[in-house]
Amino acid sequence: MNNIFKKAIQLIDKSQVIAIASHIGPDGDNIGSIMAIGKYLEAAGKEVHYLKHDNIPDYLLFLPGLEKFEQFNELLEPDLFIAVDCAEKKRLGWPEDVFKKSKRTINIDHHSTNTNFAEINIVDAEVSSTGELIFELLEFSNYVFDSLTAMYLFTAISTDTGRFLYESTSKRTLEIVAQLIGTGFDRAFVNKALWQSKKMSEARLYIDALSKVEFFQNNSLAISTISLKMASKYHADIEGTEDVINFIRDIDGIELAVLIKEKKSGVYKVSLRSKEYVDVSNIALKFGGGGHRRAAGFTFYGNLNELQKQLYSILTGVM
Amino acid sequence: MNNIFKKAIQLIDKSQVIAIASHIGPDGDNIGSIMAIGKYLEAAGKEVHYLKHDNIPDYLLFLPGLEKFEQFNELLEPDLFIAVDCAEKKRLGWPEDVFKKSKRTINIDHHSTNTNFAEINIVDAEVSSTGELIFELLEFSNYVFDSLTAMYLFTAISTDTGRFLYESTSKRTLEIVAQLIGTGFDRAFVNKALWQSKKMSEARLYIDALSKVEFFQNNSLAISTISLKMASKYHADIEGTEDVINFIRDIDGIELAVLIKEKKSGVYKVSLRSKEYVDVSNIALKFGGGGHRRAAGFTFYGNLNELQKQLYSILTGVM
Repeated sequence: MNNIFKKAIQLIDKSQVIAIASHIGPDGDNIGSIMAIGKYLEAAGKEVHYLKHDNIPDYLLFLPGLEKFEQFNELLEPDLFIAVDCAEKKRLGWPEDVFKKSKRTINIDHHSTNTNFAEINIVDAEVSSTGELIFELLEFSNYVFDSLTAMYLFTAISTDTGRFLYESTSKRTLEIVAQLIGTGFDRAFVNKALWQSKKMSEARLYIDALSKVEFFQNNSLAISTISLKMASKYHADIEGTEDVINFIRDIDGIELAVLIKEKKSGVYKVSLRSKEYVDVSNIALKFGGGGHRRAAGFTFYGNLNELQKQLYSILTGVM
Repeated sequence: MNNIFKKAIQLIDKSQVIAIASHIGPDGDNIGSIMAIGKYLEAAGKEVHYLKHDNIPDYLLFLPGLEKFEQFNELLEPDLFIAVDCAEKKRLGWPEDVFKKSKRTINIDHHSTNTNFAEINIVDAEVSSTGELIFELLEFSNYVFDSLTAMYLFTAISTDTGRFLYESTSKRTLEIVAQLIGTGFDRAFVNKALWQSKKMSEARLYIDALSKVEFFQNNSLAISTISLKMASKYHADIEGTEDVINFIRDIDGIELAVLIKEKKSGVYKVSLRSKEYVDVSNIALKFGGGGHRRAAGFTFYGNLNELQKQLYSILTGVM
């Protein structure tokens, strides 16, 4: 990887206007990684443009500096475009147009489904998170980690490992986290924001969703469906209930957990989690989505019954 | 601390028959720490006695070697008694009698309420867990950590930090965890046992308990009560629902979470968790219990209404 790091650093060194872009439906790893590399680029005197297609979820709004993100910029023609945590070009959303107009491109990601769509591809599906890759890249360039950069990367790694739970969490991951903590950022504040600030409305929706989970295949498959009607009952944001799927997956005997969220009428966001052997990224791919072996997802346009029928037939085929 | 470590190692070196004892209601830190120091002592050729008053909870039964524990041994008169993770003598249960008959005694603990009841007291309320203290002691003695000892200590530290969430998790804690992981034990297996193996019956009881939580003091105080009747409805072990309190504490705005579990008729186990400023060990002390600033507990003998009345009056006084 050092050879690719070297090429990337050289390319960054000779670029002045640099765009960094998130993916559709950004998460903690995506936003934390972007803010960290942005801080590094700003320290190097670059003109940095932070691009996003979608809004940043509520639980990440505690991060300082998010106001730098541009929701749209059609005039931008950067020297360099850096796609972060993004498995394929079309997952960029509108920034894909900026990508096409950019002179040079870098792609930094840890999804196994990454299509290596840029000129320089820093892609490693073995690491815990894109945040871990950004750490390695910055350390390779001898960057001195300040507490703010550390806070961004801690957020990225902590969220994408389920707080150091997933198998991807290596000895090296924890050494990096120890080093980040050593910079002295307010970790209690970050942990509270990430893990201890469920909204009351979302907690109530979460409890309701749990009480309605359905179990199949001798209790190895669990499916939860959250409708907009349920969300509105508690005045809750349906996006804030992603944890339902983790709760279900973590029940003894469950191999595959599925969460279907009604985003709007006729549009369903489906999350898939497995525990030991089902490769859920394969299932997501069949529906035009993507992800990792143990965590993946896709969006379905159509009728809920049709979705459930297709999904159930595929799921029972792999179990 | 090095001076005390040195004294403890000297005392261990000249002892042959050594008892290690858990506390009443043992947890992951307690059992993991005992098994680790026991492995160290066995490697040094000692005759080791593992003593426990109470049964080991189900979620720890995956640990190898637990059959070594003795539930009762009235003839034992050890050269050395090591109390582990135990804040005061009477929390030992029946092994307190063995403690009294022991020639020499060591007390290894990280509870701020520890009474320094032994001859050598390795007590540090700043560290994350007793497991972390045991690691430091063993490392001080130049012990070579094998994967089984590492698995025991990982279990101790992971459970007592809420998987590296609590403020007590330091840079050093994570360096230790990285070193433990480096020994190559099956961490996916351990994580699955600790964090991803909720029993279906207990998951159902958990959901029911969540749906009945009561909120007070402008939603900053939450109290959940789980009765034996609720547990029997789901054929669930009431001891397996401790996570209810963590869920409640982690709701935005909640400072103090309380879980009352009916152990048997007229006997209630009360757990207290705070988020930022309430010292719950002080509250537990008023009821004859103990613990840490952010996590403590006690047992109440009497009537539920009386308990609720006393508790509510004290709780509202500190908020």
